[in-house]
Amino acid sequence: MNKAMLIVMDGLGDRPVKELEGLTPLEAAHTPHLDALAARGVAGLMNSLGVGLRPGSDTSHLAILGYDIERYYTGRGTIEVSGLGMDLEPGDVALRGNLGTVDENLTVMDRRAGRITDTGPFVKDLDGLTYEGVTLKVRPGTGHRAGVILRGPGLSSRLSDNDPHEVGVKVHEVHPLDDSQEAAFTARVLNHFLEEAHRILANNILNQERIKSGKPPANYLLCRGAGYYKQIEKFQARYGLKACAIAGGGLYKGIGAFTGMEVLTVPGATGLPNTDIEAKFRAGLDALAGAYDFAFVHIKAADTFGEDGDHLGKMNFINKIDLAFRLLLDAPHLLVVTADHSTPCALKKHSGDPVPIIMVGDGAVRTDAVTAFGERACARGALGRLTGLQVMPEIINLLGLARLIGD
Amino acid sequence: MNKAMLIVMDGLGDRPVKELEGLTPLEAAHTPHLDALAARGVAGLMNSLGVGLRPGSDTSHLAILGYDIERYYTGRGTIEVSGLGMDLEPGDVALRGNLGTVDENLTVMDRRAGRITDTGPFVKDLDGLTYEGVTLKVRPGTGHRAGVILRGPGLSSRLSDNDPHEVGVKVHEVHPLDDSQEAAFTARVLNHFLEEAHRILANNILNQERIKSGKPPANYLLCRGAGYYKQIEKFQARYGLKACAIAGGGLYKGIGAFTGMEVLTVPGATGLPNTDIEAKFRAGLDALAGAYDFAFVHIKAADTFGEDGDHLGKMNFINKIDLAFRLLLDAPHLLVVTADHSTPCALKKHSGDPVPIIMVGDGAVRTDAVTAFGERACARGALGRLTGLQVMPEIINLLGLARLIGD
Repeated sequence: MNKAMLIVMDGLGDRPVKELEGLTPLEAAHTPHLDALAARGVAGLMNSLGVGLRPGSDTSHLAILGYDIERYYTGRGTIEVSGLGMDLEPGDVALRGNLGTVDENLTVMDRRAGRITDTGPFVKDLDGLTYEGVTLKVRPGTGHRAGVILRGPGLSSRLSDNDPHEVGVKVHEVHPLDDSQEAAFTARVLNHFLEEAHRILANNILNQERIKSGKPPANYLLCRGAGYYKQIEKFQARYGLKACAIAGGGLYKGIGAFTGMEVLTVPGATGLPNTDIEAKFRAGLDALAGAYDFAFVHIKAADTFGEDGDHLGKMNFINKIDLAFRLLLDAPHLLVVTADHSTPCALKKHSGDPVPIIMVGDGAVRTDAVTAFGERACARGALGRLTGLQVMPEIINLLGLARLIGD
Repeated sequence: MNKAMLIVMDGLGDRPVKELEGLTPLEAAHTPHLDALAARGVAGLMNSLGVGLRPGSDTSHLAILGYDIERYYTGRGTIEVSGLGMDLEPGDVALRGNLGTVDENLTVMDRRAGRITDTGPFVKDLDGLTYEGVTLKVRPGTGHRAGVILRGPGLSSRLSDNDPHEVGVKVHEVHPLDDSQEAAFTARVLNHFLEEAHRILANNILNQERIKSGKPPANYLLCRGAGYYKQIEKFQARYGLKACAIAGGGLYKGIGAFTGMEVLTVPGATGLPNTDIEAKFRAGLDALAGAYDFAFVHIKAADTFGEDGDHLGKMNFINKIDLAFRLLLDAPHLLVVTADHSTPCALKKHSGDPVPIIMVGDGAVRTDAVTAFGERACARGALGRLTGLQVMPEIINLLGLARLIGD
């Protein structure tokens, strides 16, 4: 057994839900296949960043893939632009962008411009703007999203967001987050670009058509999550495993691209509740049957249901995930099944509650007494309580590939 | 209860073995005495260097005895020469040596010169050679082994091995492992010594006799594991416990000597499957009945069986260990029983799989629900998952000797 599939179900963990008779959505779901896997391997609980710490989706994935966020995380923008295939260079500042809608007072009316999908014709007019030696680079992402890079001398990513993260309030000015000249300069340049972008977008003839047909115009570039270029040891160099990433959501493709994995395109992988999980698992199995040694498979929507407080939706989506897991029962690989963090329906946001983790590989992995995949069941497992940074070393060890430390 | 015995069974941990009905050799063995101890104490799992990390025997023992390898480990040579009673001085470089057999092309025919046992008459001609201000010091070890020290100004231990670790290939030149002048100088000096040693050994009249009687000549000094002198806080200074080490294998005596323990000689302690475990336990009990507060007892052969992939041999040796444990059931001391690392028969090498650990001391130690000493049984214990560096603090605490941190 020298290949592994790591399956991360975003936001899977939860808290007891009264309407589910005190069970979590995962515990209440019908999960015979996940339970069978749990019975065949070792189980535990995992906090990607540490006990009680509340992770973002970006930081948690970096940690689970073995990258210490203290060293490798500079901001979500860096990861998002990687996922769009934009090449970052030393000195660049990267941001996540949304095309949104503002009124004449710059009050945000819609952070996603009516969930606009084809942003290419809007974004192309912004790409290549220059100001005081800095070039703006913008590339369309999925839906209303865009990747944004500032390139030029003397920049800093210590910047606040102009995206106010809510509607009905005015877009923010970008402020420097430290006292450096570079941060002040970058904030000034970015504010200039955002003003100019608003003027250009507002005049785009496509927006006149959107308004005529009752759609909110895509007239503002909302930015957040500034990060900077970071040299990162690629996954294959780090672990000796040729790796691929299979995901619907842009961030998770970005995680794959940022860590040097091949990001595979799987038709039907949407990052939404309608995603084709079986297609993703099949793509992972195909990859491992071929040239790849490691497949990272990401499944998003449990997190979204958690953020909506929809415990039934979350439970039903987990039912759907479990059904797809039947495809993996006979896989001749090490299977590691976990989540990045909990997203309790009661909180409607990420939490630091630990998530279940199982590692399964007949012959290579010991077993324990755990026979169900759930938050409480896995707490009794032989893995105990792990952190995200302990996951990859354990995988490498179980594959028999760990480097000897000492003699 | 103010004295403790730490028993380390080398390479004890394993993975499920199909031929043992899915049990590990430890689980399949008949271990009523170890199980009785497990029932009387607390159990857990331990990774000497950390989750998933794959330890050498040297690094794992340092960690279990409370010495952080980042700070105290410089190479196995340092520990091996300590075990031979050779005094290292600041600036010295220490290596493990083997007397081996090469042909006229310097191809290694036998890394152990037919497992030669009396190397004294060979080694004495090498001890004291000098070259460019550096003195070679060599002392015979057990069997074909020798301790090697380079003493002089301007040396570095950043050296590759000349031992190719296999037969049928030419001995390697020693190369510097960094760009320093010191490493280049030391490599050049050591290569000179090894060439001269070959000439001297080849001409030793005893080798003519060996050849006549059909034995491979001991005509080459194979070196590996270069380390340097390291000031280390001795065990007694660190913990306030007068300690002794009881071991058959040279490395483990070296660990004892390196950490400042008294290395006791126990007739019958061989480090081999034929070792007299009961004699070692009796020696430990005698030491603790006398002047010693802490006895480190090492049992080697489970590791050797694991490296041979011999699950039945490993199981039977564990049976033998367990029988000897009857001598310890009534010991009025804290007993800590564990392993340094796993050596799964399926891998035939060390692995990062955790090992069981129990701590037993009636009155001083709580109990838990674990009633068997095994990889899976101990996973349910109250100690949870420890690292090697947590073992000594827990021992010191259970003995009631821990320093108050704060007020």
